[in-house]
Amino acid sequence: MRTIDWSGDAITMIDQTALPAELRILRIDTVDALIDAIRRLAVRGAPALGAAGALGVALAAVGGEGDGEGVRAAAAALRAARPTAVNLAWGVDRALARLPEGPDAVVAEALSVLDEDAATNRAIGRRGADLLTSMGLDQVTVLTHCNTGALACVEWGTALGIVRQLHGEGRLRGVVADETRPLLQGARLTAFELAEMGVDYRVIVDSAAASVLGSGGVDVAIVGADRITANGDVVNKIGTLAVALAAAHFGVPFLVAAPESTIDPATEHGSDVTVEDRSPEEVTSFAGVRTAPPGAGAVNPAFDVTPAGLVTAVVTERRVIEGRAAESAASTR
Amino acid sequence: MRTIDWSGDAITMIDQTALPAELRILRIDTVDALIDAIRRLAVRGAPALGAAGALGVALAAVGGEGDGEGVRAAAAALRAARPTAVNLAWGVDRALARLPEGPDAVVAEALSVLDEDAATNRAIGRRGADLLTSMGLDQVTVLTHCNTGALACVEWGTALGIVRQLHGEGRLRGVVADETRPLLQGARLTAFELAEMGVDYRVIVDSAAASVLGSGGVDVAIVGADRITANGDVVNKIGTLAVALAAAHFGVPFLVAAPESTIDPATEHGSDVTVEDRSPEEVTSFAGVRTAPPGAGAVNPAFDVTPAGLVTAVVTERRVIEGRAAESAASTR
Repeated sequence: MRTIDWSGDAITMIDQTALPAELRILRIDTVDALIDAIRRLAVRGAPALGAAGALGVALAAVGGEGDGEGVRAAAAALRAARPTAVNLAWGVDRALARLPEGPDAVVAEALSVLDEDAATNRAIGRRGADLLTSMGLDQVTVLTHCNTGALACVEWGTALGIVRQLHGEGRLRGVVADETRPLLQGARLTAFELAEMGVDYRVIVDSAAASVLGSGGVDVAIVGADRITANGDVVNKIGTLAVALAAAHFGVPFLVAAPESTIDPATEHGSDVTVEDRSPEEVTSFAGVRTAPPGAGAVNPAFDVTPAGLVTAVVTERRVIEGRAAESAASTR
Repeated sequence: MRTIDWSGDAITMIDQTALPAELRILRIDTVDALIDAIRRLAVRGAPALGAAGALGVALAAVGGEGDGEGVRAAAAALRAARPTAVNLAWGVDRALARLPEGPDAVVAEALSVLDEDAATNRAIGRRGADLLTSMGLDQVTVLTHCNTGALACVEWGTALGIVRQLHGEGRLRGVVADETRPLLQGARLTAFELAEMGVDYRVIVDSAAASVLGSGGVDVAIVGADRITANGDVVNKIGTLAVALAAAHFGVPFLVAAPESTIDPATEHGSDVTVEDRSPEEVTSFAGVRTAPPGAGAVNPAFDVTPAGLVTAVVTERRVIEGRAAESAASTR
């Protein structure tokens, strides 16, 4: 099943806040309910949010508020649900552009957003698996960071899409999944997806990645990206840089899997990107339990920047950008 | 106050399982109660366990079981409380050796174990602070990993002893403390000690250390050691290697603070050390809350090995072993 989908008159989605304890499917038939689901992170991940935005406009178009004013108001409310999530606004705008052609056209556009995301991820998966073949890696154990799987997208996944492809080809020996503090997307979501796939996997604390990479037990590290700047620097979930440094030190290939839309030719270097600081409470408590002393401060950067020089290759749905070649390729895109 | 001490007829200790929520002082007047405290980690840290072993024998010697048989049985039971903790057995044996001279001699020996540990740590602290001066570092922000403070020792601390010394000299700008998954000794214990000292500190998730070191906001990383092999490799809490790799990449000095007793000239390389794998449950759950899916496996190495080449200097109570010099110094010790 898809992480988020259209049932003809409503949106269905996996409630990610209930995972991994429970696989709960939400049926959402109002824009207000969708906004609530987005705000409480029942749906998360840039591609999945793009789909949610498009489907939300479809919901408004086919619903009671069939007139243009009502749909445009719903679209504005959707965009504001998570104002910094650019994919959400992008999905809203794509569906909204078809409104003059009527509700059916809006629904069709939303469904093509979903289909394109699925096709993009499958292409990334195939390209990544082929790249590993060309590197002489047949049977592989993969190290992952955060969740870059079906749950972050409509289906299949980006970095975890390569893992899924390898599994389908019978080439996946196993996965070592960073738990990914503070929000544990690795331990909760990636582990859930790997268990569903029937993959042999182990969770580790993030700080163990270096010694696991040094042990010789991992053949390749594959991560996603939130943004790739013109010079090939990779902005991604906090902890990615530590994985890249250890991979480089121990000579383990470090791959980045992301759609072309992640490449940002307008931003020259990773250092030009402002990294969002998230709430200190994510660090000073754990699974709802306070861990640090009362009054303890914390720094909680959401992302870090991995310099292009540490990246073996970037894999997109269209191409493989090897090493520092990312620099010129991205800027001439 | 000392983490563990002697009150004349009983042992007093800080119950580390209650931190940071509560500063609870245990009064222990039987060997059985001490064994229970050791087993449930109310007292932890190699130097503190050495003190506990010596004080336990003192307790037996002055107590009802004043005869030699009874004390020797108590000593054997203490040694077995955590059989892999070499310092515990070492402390037991030091006190037991004075038994022929009577209970007062045993107590005196136990107290000198405590005093020597305190003196060793203060010497490490002064030497470390002086080393930073010689490196041109006056006002500093320090990055720490795990807990290497008073709570791991009798008082003062090793790596955190240098921090304490710098604070006393008015040279400490602040501390960035790795939370140190899986058991969060940084977020729980180091943060507690820093708050008590009145130091400006921030807790980070372990995987953020690389970007914090890269941000230019940290002047030096200082860690402890569980063992330093003859070639200068450092065996320490999981995650130390990731800190060392990032410090080397960004040109931040990486210091190791440890007593001479940590240096093991009989073991050539870090790769010769068998790293203990701890329970997977430490990774897949926390405070009774399951974080990974049912059935999820985990790998949980307790330590990692930082190669000598990544170490700027080792600071002991007697000397500073710079860089690769550790190799020959340790083997001729």
